[in-house]
Amino acid sequence: MCRSNHVVNGGYRMKRSFYLKSTDIEVAKSLYEKSLESIFLSIKTERIETKDAYNRVLAQAVYAKRSVPFYPSAAMDGIAINSKLTIEANEHKPLLLNNNDYIEVDTGDPILEPYDAVIMVEDCIESEKGIQIIKSVVPWENVRPIGEDIVEGELLFPMEHVLRPMDISVLMAANLLTIEVYKQVKVAIIPTGTEIRSAYDKVETGDIVESNSYLFMGLSKEAYAIPTTLDIVPDDYDRLKETIKKASSMYDVVLVNAGSSAGREDYTASVISDLGEVIVHGLAIKPGKPAILGIVNHVPVIGIPGYPVSAHIVFEEFVTPLLLKMNHRPRLIQKTVQATSTRRIVSSLKSKEYIRVKLGYIDGKFVATPLARGAGMMMSVVKSDGYALIEKNSEGIEANEEMTVWLNKPIEIIQNTIMAIGSHDVIMDVLNNLFEQSKLNYHISSVHVGSYAGLLALKRKESHLAMTHLLDSTGTYNQECLKQLFSNESMVLVKGVKRIQGLIVKSGNPLKIHTIQDIVNYRFVNRQRGAGTRVLLDYWIKQNNINPDLIEGYDKELNTHLAVAAAVSNGIADCGLGVYSAAKIMGCDFIPLGEEEYDFICRKEFFETDQMKQFMIQLKSESFKQICEQLGGYNTDCSGEVFEYA
Amino acid sequence: MCRSNHVVNGGYRMKRSFYLKSTDIEVAKSLYEKSLESIFLSIKTERIETKDAYNRVLAQAVYAKRSVPFYPSAAMDGIAINSKLTIEANEHKPLLLNNNDYIEVDTGDPILEPYDAVIMVEDCIESEKGIQIIKSVVPWENVRPIGEDIVEGELLFPMEHVLRPMDISVLMAANLLTIEVYKQVKVAIIPTGTEIRSAYDKVETGDIVESNSYLFMGLSKEAYAIPTTLDIVPDDYDRLKETIKKASSMYDVVLVNAGSSAGREDYTASVISDLGEVIVHGLAIKPGKPAILGIVNHVPVIGIPGYPVSAHIVFEEFVTPLLLKMNHRPRLIQKTVQATSTRRIVSSLKSKEYIRVKLGYIDGKFVATPLARGAGMMMSVVKSDGYALIEKNSEGIEANEEMTVWLNKPIEIIQNTIMAIGSHDVIMDVLNNLFEQSKLNYHISSVHVGSYAGLLALKRKESHLAMTHLLDSTGTYNQECLKQLFSNESMVLVKGVKRIQGLIVKSGNPLKIHTIQDIVNYRFVNRQRGAGTRVLLDYWIKQNNINPDLIEGYDKELNTHLAVAAAVSNGIADCGLGVYSAAKIMGCDFIPLGEEEYDFICRKEFFETDQMKQFMIQLKSESFKQICEQLGGYNTDCSGEVFEYA
Repeated sequence: MCRSNHVVNGGYRMKRSFYLKSTDIEVAKSLYEKSLESIFLSIKTERIETKDAYNRVLAQAVYAKRSVPFYPSAAMDGIAINSKLTIEANEHKPLLLNNNDYIEVDTGDPILEPYDAVIMVEDCIESEKGIQIIKSVVPWENVRPIGEDIVEGELLFPMEHVLRPMDISVLMAANLLTIEVYKQVKVAIIPTGTEIRSAYDKVETGDIVESNSYLFMGLSKEAYAIPTTLDIVPDDYDRLKETIKKASSMYDVVLVNAGSSAGREDYTASVISDLGEVIVHGLAIKPGKPAILGIVNHVPVIGIPGYPVSAHIVFEEFVTPLLLKMNHRPRLIQKTVQATSTRRIVSSLKSKEYIRVKLGYIDGKFVATPLARGAGMMMSVVKSDGYALIEKNSEGIEANEEMTVWLNKPIEIIQNTIMAIGSHDVIMDVLNNLFEQSKLNYHISSVHVGSYAGLLALKRKESHLAMTHLLDSTGTYNQECLKQLFSNESMVLVKGVKRIQGLIVKSGNPLKIHTIQDIVNYRFVNRQRGAGTRVLLDYWIKQNNINPDLIEGYDKELNTHLAVAAAVSNGIADCGLGVYSAAKIMGCDFIPLGEEEYDFICRKEFFETDQMKQFMIQLKSESFKQICEQLGGYNTDCSGEVFEYA
Repeated sequence: MCRSNHVVNGGYRMKRSFYLKSTDIEVAKSLYEKSLESIFLSIKTERIETKDAYNRVLAQAVYAKRSVPFYPSAAMDGIAINSKLTIEANEHKPLLLNNNDYIEVDTGDPILEPYDAVIMVEDCIESEKGIQIIKSVVPWENVRPIGEDIVEGELLFPMEHVLRPMDISVLMAANLLTIEVYKQVKVAIIPTGTEIRSAYDKVETGDIVESNSYLFMGLSKEAYAIPTTLDIVPDDYDRLKETIKKASSMYDVVLVNAGSSAGREDYTASVISDLGEVIVHGLAIKPGKPAILGIVNHVPVIGIPGYPVSAHIVFEEFVTPLLLKMNHRPRLIQKTVQATSTRRIVSSLKSKEYIRVKLGYIDGKFVATPLARGAGMMMSVVKSDGYALIEKNSEGIEANEEMTVWLNKPIEIIQNTIMAIGSHDVIMDVLNNLFEQSKLNYHISSVHVGSYAGLLALKRKESHLAMTHLLDSTGTYNQECLKQLFSNESMVLVKGVKRIQGLIVKSGNPLKIHTIQDIVNYRFVNRQRGAGTRVLLDYWIKQNNINPDLIEGYDKELNTHLAVAAAVSNGIADCGLGVYSAAKIMGCDFIPLGEEEYDFICRKEFFETDQMKQFMIQLKSESFKQICEQLGGYNTDCSGEVFEYA
């Protein structure tokens, strides 16, 4: 099932070939583009029904086949008349019409001989004898000439035009029932790997769930292509070769995921070079290095790395532009913003780096906080707002330096998001959900760095809101720290929840852990320095005269309550300090040790914004209280109480 | 066939009810929104396969159902080992491993007991005796813990989240194979009118081709709804009532087009009020006044005016926001820009007006030139870049005043477009097509106002390029005018084409028109003042001592060569002055009178831009010459020659 089970001991398998190069990304793009030139030139078009052509690209200029209107027609409601009859009419001498002199017309009705003009209904006076007119009209007055809107033979759209809804209606009116458009590119996605299992299959230890194909499907659709995911191919040279060969005869682009590195069973590069040509193997980007740009059977075949973050970056950098070009779509203007970094980012000189960041929109500027870098951590991409781009040959970015960020989300969402940095609690998810339910297009983005770091971020204007539960020397919560850090500013402290902190232990508490003293005997998992929970732990172990050096795992730091509970649940540790809700979610037992106060701090100006008003409404809502009740371990009696500090 | 044929003479039919009100658009929106409140609250959701959920909106918060990874796994290629065995290893004292002490692992392989750490392949030294290590490892070093990426039970997405490709892959990895999303709104489009014919039917005089439904189909899709167009309903009260009744039981939104005014056969309002309730009838907007906002059977029923421009505006103002809201989509940030108007725009105090404009992106600013206003002229919307919005209670906009423009096109296209204002010639279409074929994402937008007005627009920086063929007093073309108007500026004159002007007459020249003198005997159609062709005509009639008062139709002005040729072809006039290509396109005969020079003028700075360089390449290309040859009546010998004026 899992590769490592095949061979128990070493020998030949340690011989790996490290022939992967690091080609500069721009060099790779231009090399590949050049190799694909003849492919770009072999334009495929198709004739389709115009009614189905919304958002397709014209492959030919289109000329009108019928005028609109195609007969002279009334521009007004009124009567059609021959203008010569009206010459004498004026206000002083109304002209009585014979019934045979006119016909009534509605807007759009044809004006045919002997009529050549329309008198508006407002200028017709009804009398017992018939209709009188008080104005003369000139030929074609109030008549829409043939072709007023569209003239038969005129150019309606040049080739390459992307058809909008209004364009379809004009084409149909101009009698163009079918049109020639570019075919949409068909993409084959080939997942590979002996250990890879479909998300629909039952999985066991050692299996890896195939999920990248879903990313590729969506990204292909966004580039107007038609993707298909083929069956998973195990790490078998011949089967992979057979599959790529067949796919290259049936699709316009083939994506192989993964086997694109240079490991023992990474066959993709050799199969491509066997069937066709490898143009580039290995890119100077991080993550995303082990990519392959190849051609088989006149079809681009791209080997995409297996780690999801690498896969995402290689797709966006290489596959998206390729699909857009083949689909005759203008290159998307990549949505980027300039943002200042909240901290120093070290980067490799040898690679272009893509650093996940959270963006805050603070005082009209974007502020970027770097997140985790692991190539396997797709959720950190999902939670991020984009990638900061750090070019090759740059050593990195200093704190407060500007950098370019590729957005993962609509910019409007980022601009309407409360950036909350500080201590972690499950109630941040609860508040975010309540925000979404209220449908006011406001959002909460929370970054968990611990209480003290959250206050520092607020101080540096990297966030709108800090979440904090810092025990003061006087035994109160959060006030002392606030006064110290923000002595010159007008601040607001909003009471959040009181929550119970305690020891998280495995379900059933098999090790019988009951007090803070017990932790010296077992494997502990700690929170990071600056976290309120860490402050609390250190306070309690000091009170109990425990030497931290004696606690196994005191140095093992995790960033959230949930991560601590997960570590205990998974047996990586025996206990950790955290909140009840996290223990409950992870199915752990909980030994309460004491109550603490989890509060919010923001600047006075921000407190008065619409977003923060909504936040207050949610925090004080019945729904919030009910959900906290259900979660357990919370006291919401003071939630939403406000203390101002000038 | 056409309504006016039914009844020849008047009487009761002149009695129309002018009960249409003019409700302020914001008042109408809030009235309607209030009436629909209960509809908005009756949320419809559905459970769908996650793999098909790209770009759908979550109706519930989603929590992970599996951790990723769900077992501890190798973060590196190397060997799995129990960390305790390695404590002694260091560079000075390499440790030789027993074959039973370790297993080889690839990245992603599970790390199970007794193993608890991974040593990177680079830190393993192969010897004849086996593998040696030179570093100790701590527990869980180089091991991805369970849930490193996704923790089972964690909130993945709040409700209302719009699913991106990366989100689908995360959901699949976290074992969420189906999810609850909001249903997409189903829209019924009902075309009405006895004179309305399907675009697929044969049409004859008096018929109106139904094309608005295609506009509505596309706009509905853009708002994430699922539209269906029903059969055309004639102006028959009972049939319309039956259709609306049925549609309101099967769809979520019903659109009726048109019959929404207050004319004789405008039944929509009375049918809606018969079946349900009319909330608003008549809006203070121009165009778009005769709209109906109603509710039938708990379903919004909207009567949309028949004229396409009115239909477009009412749809965008009322239907799009309604569909977005019902589909739980954030209100689109309407794409607008601020632009200065090139001229005064008079507007009604009583209505909000939507004025079609062409936008030029000149020196980093948007400049808007108003276009035709007719509500029936859809092509002018298609050719426009957007609508300038002039609020109710405003008398209009002064020249150079700023106004808000709603874009019809991607802003990037407008920013990459050469704004060419001046005289009309078919070669502008030719050049535009060549531009599109070159796929450099540059475009040409030409506005036809005549030569002199084009030069004035260039002078006022409303355009990048002027097209001109003005005969100078010295018998040369364009130079004198250029020097006069731009005496203080560095300008470039680019020779365009020499073209033959002549008389356009009906095919076969039935009236035997041969010289300029002949035009006094027939119905002439003229070009507007300031047009080069008009200057030429006036020059020629003066030379020939013709009194313009004697020319029938001298005052009838059209703006393009094609419009003149169309007027002749349709019999509205007997002859007009124009170029050969226009006569040929419209199937007219052509009597050559003389050659003239159609040139381009721009500022020196613009001449040096990339866009203008591309323009020059196209103008001098073989393709351009060949197409001019095929069109006939052109001489391209000097095309692209450049004269600079400091």
